[in-house]
Amino acid sequence: MLMSNYEKIKTDVSHISQLTKQLAKDDPRRIVHSIKVGFAITLVSLFFYFDPLYEGLGMNAMWAVLTVVVVFEFSVGATLGKGVNRGLATIIGGMSGFGAHRLSSLSGDKLEPFFLGFSVFITAGVTTFMRFFPKVKARFDYGLLVFILTFCLICVSGYRDDQVIDMAHRRITTILIGSSTAVIVCLIICPVWAGTDLHNLVSTNILTLSLFFQGFGIEYFKTSLDITPSDDEIEDNKSSLQAIKSVLNSKNNIDTLLNYARWEFRHGRFKKGHPWTQYQKIGELVRNCACRAEALHSFLYSQGQAPNEVKAKFLEPCMKMSTESGNCLSELSMAIKKMNKPSKAKPHLQNAKQAVQNLNVLLTANIWKNLNLSDVTPVATVAKLLADVVACTEDIAEAVQELASLAKFKDAKEKTKVAPQIEKTKVAPQIEKTKMANNQGSIKRRPHANHVILIETSSPTSSPRISVPKDPPSLAMAQQAAE
Amino acid sequence: MLMSNYEKIKTDVSHISQLTKQLAKDDPRRIVHSIKVGFAITLVSLFFYFDPLYEGLGMNAMWAVLTVVVVFEFSVGATLGKGVNRGLATIIGGMSGFGAHRLSSLSGDKLEPFFLGFSVFITAGVTTFMRFFPKVKARFDYGLLVFILTFCLICVSGYRDDQVIDMAHRRITTILIGSSTAVIVCLIICPVWAGTDLHNLVSTNILTLSLFFQGFGIEYFKTSLDITPSDDEIEDNKSSLQAIKSVLNSKNNIDTLLNYARWEFRHGRFKKGHPWTQYQKIGELVRNCACRAEALHSFLYSQGQAPNEVKAKFLEPCMKMSTESGNCLSELSMAIKKMNKPSKAKPHLQNAKQAVQNLNVLLTANIWKNLNLSDVTPVATVAKLLADVVACTEDIAEAVQELASLAKFKDAKEKTKVAPQIEKTKVAPQIEKTKMANNQGSIKRRPHANHVILIETSSPTSSPRISVPKDPPSLAMAQQAAE
Repeated sequence: MLMSNYEKIKTDVSHISQLTKQLAKDDPRRIVHSIKVGFAITLVSLFFYFDPLYEGLGMNAMWAVLTVVVVFEFSVGATLGKGVNRGLATIIGGMSGFGAHRLSSLSGDKLEPFFLGFSVFITAGVTTFMRFFPKVKARFDYGLLVFILTFCLICVSGYRDDQVIDMAHRRITTILIGSSTAVIVCLIICPVWAGTDLHNLVSTNILTLSLFFQGFGIEYFKTSLDITPSDDEIEDNKSSLQAIKSVLNSKNNIDTLLNYARWEFRHGRFKKGHPWTQYQKIGELVRNCACRAEALHSFLYSQGQAPNEVKAKFLEPCMKMSTESGNCLSELSMAIKKMNKPSKAKPHLQNAKQAVQNLNVLLTANIWKNLNLSDVTPVATVAKLLADVVACTEDIAEAVQELASLAKFKDAKEKTKVAPQIEKTKVAPQIEKTKMANNQGSIKRRPHANHVILIETSSPTSSPRISVPKDPPSLAMAQQAAE
Repeated sequence: MLMSNYEKIKTDVSHISQLTKQLAKDDPRRIVHSIKVGFAITLVSLFFYFDPLYEGLGMNAMWAVLTVVVVFEFSVGATLGKGVNRGLATIIGGMSGFGAHRLSSLSGDKLEPFFLGFSVFITAGVTTFMRFFPKVKARFDYGLLVFILTFCLICVSGYRDDQVIDMAHRRITTILIGSSTAVIVCLIICPVWAGTDLHNLVSTNILTLSLFFQGFGIEYFKTSLDITPSDDEIEDNKSSLQAIKSVLNSKNNIDTLLNYARWEFRHGRFKKGHPWTQYQKIGELVRNCACRAEALHSFLYSQGQAPNEVKAKFLEPCMKMSTESGNCLSELSMAIKKMNKPSKAKPHLQNAKQAVQNLNVLLTANIWKNLNLSDVTPVATVAKLLADVVACTEDIAEAVQELASLAKFKDAKEKTKVAPQIEKTKVAPQIEKTKMANNQGSIKRRPHANHVILIETSSPTSSPRISVPKDPPSLAMAQQAAE
């Protein structure tokens, strides 16, 4: 009994320590943040240790500790927002509370409690209702809370203690000291900027989609390409669904970061007046596109797949739409990350749109007469959805372009223009190796991004050709099928 | 100049008052909540007005006011959660703070400040890191904050004031008084239950989807049915997209309500141990389905629609899949709302699945040889997506069934079984009127829900027939086309 309890505790402890390691590894800034909070609180506690300050502010000094604990948030924007909210609300609430106290003392001893009670009731009620206004809630929710608090404390405690001005003055001073300590520590030691996080989150979301679309084509057509999916690949695919879901559910995160980012001033590469709201717009379009990705994902392993020979007819335009949309999104993500103009995305978008036209031409061609419509429908649906994805990609590209001109992104540097070509050649042998490894039955992790190289485009306007690594028969077959 | 300022202020004021009215109208509980908060704060302020209590708790009484302001939340669950968090954290924090203070006083006068500073630093740092654990954050985030606060205040102020126990005792008492005042007022005056809200939100989300699918069929095939869309309908459709988007973005809302609902005890129709997490599962599946709805929506007015004669061939199975999925979802939504077993949803699901089979039969039929594939693809894609919607609907139905057995929903009452039939006959003439109004060019609001009546199913297993209101030629044509 005792032994099993001991075992259980041991498992629990190891589970918690594993989780802790994972949390710290996922974002090491969490550890830094914890240290910063500990440091700021210890710093403010000095107000109690050292006599002169203690004498000046008295027991109110504990408000400074309280303020640091409450105001200190993960990002600079959140801390600034809370600090400013708390500071301003304390000043306004203190003054209104004092005003209400003065007015009520004029009304005579008997009426005073009623007058005070009434003003507390009305102020608390109206302010609480104001917290329901969406725009007010987004920026000033905490401020309104502190306003009610300060108003009530000053107004009501004033009834007992006639040194209201003195109390208000002390409370305001300590809270300002606490707020500024929190803001300064948050700002000086490894600051975390909500704006940067927002910027990166949107860029990462686009990258997630790009990886999915770059891999989708080969994933869907692999039976035509004679590739057997390994367990690992199926696992990969499940995790890619998770990634898409996280993109779909990112709205709340983006909105929160946007609210914080608005409080932040110029930092790093972000100037004052950076068009933060544009990220919200891009986020919305990216979620739209993620919806299509989820719908496409459900067709990956669904029952009633089209026969290989039918799939093969669709291979070329579908692969191109999927891969080129993926490439375009990848370039857009990179452009946001590096704050370059998204000029390199355009050729890929052109290719993708060309593929949509190719698809339309293919559909009007005279090769379907001998086919059963039920065989064609599954892959035609995928093709149509991919065409829809191209439209979504175009919307995203426009929104990113708008962001680039609003935020005055720079032109991409010359040297990076050559990079993709080299990268492609570098990656090419790798997929061959992976294929061989797969054929030998060994399991090797093959990231989706590698699939990109399957279709190479020599120039934006020329038609694509499928690159054939030396003599893998399946790919040669795929090329034949596509022609 | 003065005049234009005056005008501007007038517009602003009228805008704000309009917004206020809207907020109050959307959810009248907001006004009740504001009054409750005002009342609770005024109530607690009595601690200051009346002498005996004031003498007992001293200036610490303001902690009671502070607690009410901070703890009082919109729903019972949130208030209970915050109250319990604050109460427990204050007790634990107070005791640990006292312990740290005792230990440090043993270490001698010189070492004491260092020891205290160190313990504050470590406690604040470790506790702050604990707030990153997702499960801890969901339930105890506020408690950890209050723990740091109380620990620091007791530990540090104790260094000055040797009446630590007395202070801890007062702080704990006042906070318990404040918390319980908040909880009691929140609970007694028109309580808002997060659990009920969660229950209704999930039910409403399903209803939103059901309305979309019930309307989608006629919306998509109306060119075949020779119905010209009015401006009003296009407006309708835009708002239905907004509704779908709100379903897609409901994850955060559901998660928050779930966290609150867990704090609540038995209330209304919800027993202790109600399977709240099942709502999260259903919410996830509903969002999946909403993704398909959004993809389908993009095909409604897209370029390159299929010709009417091709659409007409798909009309019957597509209308049935769309409408019957909608009906099934509508029944599921109703079953959740009324807490009945979702038995009435099954026949609709059967019909929808039958329609999927009909679609497959149709696709293998020999009627496509003379058609251009590019004409067929758009509508075939819609059909495939609708088949996917039927699969999603089945998943939702299973999850709702699971909820029904976990929460022991009752059998639906006999009388409601007849209701839909009556409803259908009642609605039938209405659509005819609307059609006539449309033909006369007048604009009349036509809710999507009315479209339901177009396909009536006499029994779950029999094939559907399209109901024909007396002699509107377009519908007769549609029937011919479907046969």
